Amino acid sequence: MYLSDIPLDEAWDRFRNALEAEGLWGPLEAESVAVDECLGRVTAESIWARRSVPHYHASAMDGYALRGRGTDRASERTPVDLQLGTETTYLDTGDALPDWADAVVPVEEVETVVLPGGSGIRLRAPVPPWSHVRPMGEDIIQTELVVPAGHRLRPADLGAVTASGHMRLPVWRRPRVAIIPTGSELVRADLVAPAGRIPEFNSIMLAAQVQAWDGSAERFDIVPDDQERIKEVVSAAAQSHDLVLLNAGSSAGSEDYTAGVIASLGEVLVHGIAVRPGHPVVIGMIGVPGQRGKGRRTPILGVPGYPVSAALTGEILVEPLLRRWSGLPPSHSETIEATLTRKVHSSAGDLELLRVTVGRVGGRVVAAPLSRGAGVISSLVRADGLVLIPPGIQGLEAGERVDVQLYRSAAEIERTLVVLGSHDLTIDLMAQFLGRQGIHLASGNLGSQGGLVALARGEAHFTGCHLLDPQSGEFNVAYVKRYLEGMPATIVTLAGREQGLITATANPRGLKRLEDLAGEDVAFVNRQRGSGTRILLDYHLTLAGVPSSTIQGYEREEYTHLGVAAAVASGRADAGLGIRAAAAALDLGFVPLFEERYDLVIPAEYYASLKLRPLLDLLENPEFRGAVAKLPGYDVSQMGNVVWSSG
Amino acid sequence: MYLSDIPLDEAWDRFRNALEAEGLWGPLEAESVAVDECLGRVTAESIWARRSVPHYHASAMDGYALRGRGTDRASERTPVDLQLGTETTYLDTGDALPDWADAVVPVEEVETVVLPGGSGIRLRAPVPPWSHVRPMGEDIIQTELVVPAGHRLRPADLGAVTASGHMRLPVWRRPRVAIIPTGSELVRADLVAPAGRIPEFNSIMLAAQVQAWDGSAERFDIVPDDQERIKEVVSAAAQSHDLVLLNAGSSAGSEDYTAGVIASLGEVLVHGIAVRPGHPVVIGMIGVPGQRGKGRRTPILGVPGYPVSAALTGEILVEPLLRRWSGLPPSHSETIEATLTRKVHSSAGDLELLRVTVGRVGGRVVAAPLSRGAGVISSLVRADGLVLIPPGIQGLEAGERVDVQLYRSAAEIERTLVVLGSHDLTIDLMAQFLGRQGIHLASGNLGSQGGLVALARGEAHFTGCHLLDPQSGEFNVAYVKRYLEGMPATIVTLAGREQGLITATANPRGLKRLEDLAGEDVAFVNRQRGSGTRILLDYHLTLAGVPSSTIQGYEREEYTHLGVAAAVASGRADAGLGIRAAAAALDLGFVPLFEERYDLVIPAEYYASLKLRPLLDLLENPEFRGAVAKLPGYDVSQMGNVVWSSG
Repeated sequence: MYLSDIPLDEAWDRFRNALEAEGLWGPLEAESVAVDECLGRVTAESIWARRSVPHYHASAMDGYALRGRGTDRASERTPVDLQLGTETTYLDTGDALPDWADAVVPVEEVETVVLPGGSGIRLRAPVPPWSHVRPMGEDIIQTELVVPAGHRLRPADLGAVTASGHMRLPVWRRPRVAIIPTGSELVRADLVAPAGRIPEFNSIMLAAQVQAWDGSAERFDIVPDDQERIKEVVSAAAQSHDLVLLNAGSSAGSEDYTAGVIASLGEVLVHGIAVRPGHPVVIGMIGVPGQRGKGRRTPILGVPGYPVSAALTGEILVEPLLRRWSGLPPSHSETIEATLTRKVHSSAGDLELLRVTVGRVGGRVVAAPLSRGAGVISSLVRADGLVLIPPGIQGLEAGERVDVQLYRSAAEIERTLVVLGSHDLTIDLMAQFLGRQGIHLASGNLGSQGGLVALARGEAHFTGCHLLDPQSGEFNVAYVKRYLEGMPATIVTLAGREQGLITATANPRGLKRLEDLAGEDVAFVNRQRGSGTRILLDYHLTLAGVPSSTIQGYEREEYTHLGVAAAVASGRADAGLGIRAAAAALDLGFVPLFEERYDLVIPAEYYASLKLRPLLDLLENPEFRGAVAKLPGYDVSQMGNVVWSSG
Repeated sequence: MYLSDIPLDEAWDRFRNALEAEGLWGPLEAESVAVDECLGRVTAESIWARRSVPHYHASAMDGYALRGRGTDRASERTPVDLQLGTETTYLDTGDALPDWADAVVPVEEVETVVLPGGSGIRLRAPVPPWSHVRPMGEDIIQTELVVPAGHRLRPADLGAVTASGHMRLPVWRRPRVAIIPTGSELVRADLVAPAGRIPEFNSIMLAAQVQAWDGSAERFDIVPDDQERIKEVVSAAAQSHDLVLLNAGSSAGSEDYTAGVIASLGEVLVHGIAVRPGHPVVIGMIGVPGQRGKGRRTPILGVPGYPVSAALTGEILVEPLLRRWSGLPPSHSETIEATLTRKVHSSAGDLELLRVTVGRVGGRVVAAPLSRGAGVISSLVRADGLVLIPPGIQGLEAGERVDVQLYRSAAEIERTLVVLGSHDLTIDLMAQFLGRQGIHLASGNLGSQGGLVALARGEAHFTGCHLLDPQSGEFNVAYVKRYLEGMPATIVTLAGREQGLITATANPRGLKRLEDLAGEDVAFVNRQRGSGTRILLDYHLTLAGVPSSTIQGYEREEYTHLGVAAAVASGRADAGLGIRAAAAALDLGFVPLFEERYDLVIPAEYYASLKLRPLLDLLENPEFRGAVAKLPGYDVSQMGNVVWSSG
């Protein structure tokens, strides 16, 4: 079995042809469901009114029923009196008009009088026929269309169909989808996974996708890499489900059994689609024996194992099929035109699904590419949308206009603040506090100098930085002047932070100073060039007279404080320079060396804007200050201080 | 108890103060829910990674683990050989890197060789440390923020939190809402309702709203108008629910007990809000006795009885509260700027919630007001959005720019075709067939001439009309020339229709000709001025020499064929002129008199456009033709014929 990537369109053509042959290229079957369980379901037939609404002539007011013709001559001077019981009768709103009456006069427009035959009412103006009456069918007339077929039912629809005489509705049955995780390397996510064993979580994600797309998902237990066992499970699942998703084993490695299993139980239609991430997809049909020898075939997808590939396979193959089966038209995700912030290479043969964060900065919508690794599920969590780079294109340039298929609504994008620059735990806290107000914080870690470059290019609303100027020994101001030349901006302090050596727990090597890093004994892990921590390190190495060439691992770069801490925790390195909070998070040792100031840099254009107001308010918010102060090594005494302002 | 309308803002101020005093102005409580049941739930806390992803250094390829440093000198001429077992070992993708290794070389980049100590591999290029390795934490680093608090969980989020070590998540509890229908006039919707009794359907609609807004709704049985009985039910409901919705009885009539019940069980905060529809709203708090004398108070809303009022009360009061309780920020419904097609009066004291249909016609987005009756639930079914007319404004002019809060996405609005003009059952069928393709047909019934006027004003994509020219005896062409002067257009036939007298079943009065309508004996029901049927009637009355003044009921106007039929079916009239299908729908008598042609009129701008293509394709679609042909009195032999075209 070998992979041979074909274009997505061609894969769909083969799949559709096979589904059509089985009569599976449309809604599954109609079922009758009680109207109070129909929210979100899709009508299998048009719903026509069985009764009119109202189904009788109803009084629209509290008042008196009468014959309008008999009041023609009523006036201030020549009032008309009507006898209660014979010529008029009292009605509450909603009461039925008697047969003999054709109008209602509101109670506040009549006088009650005593007449020879008993009590009555006096009118001083005519009451035209049909006034203050809701005629039968005013809202809905019997036989009229209430909701069309293929309509996803909303609350008001359920009210209208019930009013018009329906207690059950014909809706399309929900598709049943089996999700089978396979792989001897997998362990249940609730168990401890040793190194080399992977917690199985794709099935949770795929099941949630199926649920979000109106299907009903059944998650199977993990099946080890045993072709016969996989065959048995798949064969049984195909009998009781409309679609089988077999997760992983879809590539062409020695333990990739998916294509073989499908071939032995039916037919492989496609093995490999020219889409990245996600290319090792298998599409097939599995034979299911039926009664009296009349079998059928059930579609099956071999879904790749990397989580981003699995999720995107769901989006490009499972969602369109489930929508068809549910009687819905193809989904049109909202798109927005944006400017790409970075150059992106792509393989000319593939359709590339590029995850991006999106925000409106100034007049432009900017799309910043996220990590492209098929295994980086956090990139999907952070993504605001997808950019589709069609095959035949080698990549996209920075500044190019792209269409983004949005995961969030355009309205949410408008409420997004973009921060690019040095990553800090306070930025995560900020995201949490802003989220409560419905503001999404899209953050990207470019390091302090990268953030200033992005700010100068108009790609972010603000940046966080902690850049020591070696000349002055001052933080940030000199860099802002240099990078934002001609762009008025304000520097506001977020927090003071302790920087120091992150070491193994209890600092077994007894590291105390930068000088202790020199030599072959200590494996160091560094931060990337341009980051504030790297500049701080270089500044103090120079002061201390320690050449960087004497530090083993100086060239090994991590992109976050936690990345450095994780390298130390795993034993890959003995020490790195970073903040106390990162060391504390992983229970590592910490040797405090320096105090630094982490500031926010905000262009004047946004500093005064309503859009940034919630951010600046946060710096005054005692709850936020308290949360930051609780982080180990953070000092909030200067939070909110304006350090410098230009223009 | 008297109604005294106050502005919505003030009502919310009072409600919020009372809720704050009870600690109910925020999310309810957190609960721990298994991650596979968390789709759509809202995180009560930020979720920080408990383990890194991957949680070990993993091979990113099928290949051989090795020490990168040891391959520095490998080249084409000076290959480096590594002994299997001691210096290198085979790994599948995802396998853990052994402690002693720091890099992987892909299997396709090595030669296997036999070495003195056994088999081995040969390298002809250096393998830098950490190549082809997914380092621990590449995706997510332990302690990192995975999703912030207040986040509605999506499939990829569930994947990421599971991967990072969470099997249960703290999410906000769903609010429990009691829905209590009251009113002696109500009958269960599944029973036959005699005249004067109203099928109860508001509770189904309100429960669906609560469900759509992430609450859990309990529908109670109908409680008759008995103050003591209502008190008992409300009091019990308040103990077991977070919110009580008491439907109807919220006005100030003799059988409106809501305010009294609330006052006797707690406090009425508001009785009457200056919002139309929906003003008779009661807002209150009900005392609930607690253990050890420590009681609490449960919010209750008296919801008006008219269904549109009830639904809009849900939108302006229940949804914001449920979102707060669910930990979500206030909803920002998508808005679109549109041009209003008709003048609208509004009461200066009230906030008016105007339902509109919306579509993009040419370059403009147009909003056409729907029926404003609080009892017309079908107006909510048909609405694409709401226009809020603030208090202090007497109304809006035709052509004014308004902001529409959309019920559909802007993308759906772009896929909407607007047809204004004469209503016909085929238009309902068209809506059904176009809906399958994801195209929404927004139809408005303005009569044939009204439709041509709307077309000339650029408010619709096409119109349906059947207008007989009395001079020529021809249909439509003369009118289109007159109304669309200077606007090139095409007339395409939809269907031929039989027009005749709709009479009571079996035509008890033996009506045969128009002449039989004259005199006091027969009550006639007419169509509105400008409608094609009205013109047809007037034309043939003139031919027959019957003055309209001799016809009793000539001035009583209905707006649809089914409206005429309903008037006859209910006994309000003996006869009306209309199409056979309308008579057949209500099992009435029908006396065929004339054949007419119902045409579609399409401006040239749209006739050639892709947007209208699906409509024109429909006229060729055998399934659609068949569905129309099945309607009684319809002739499809000329469907799709171009009758006339200009420009």
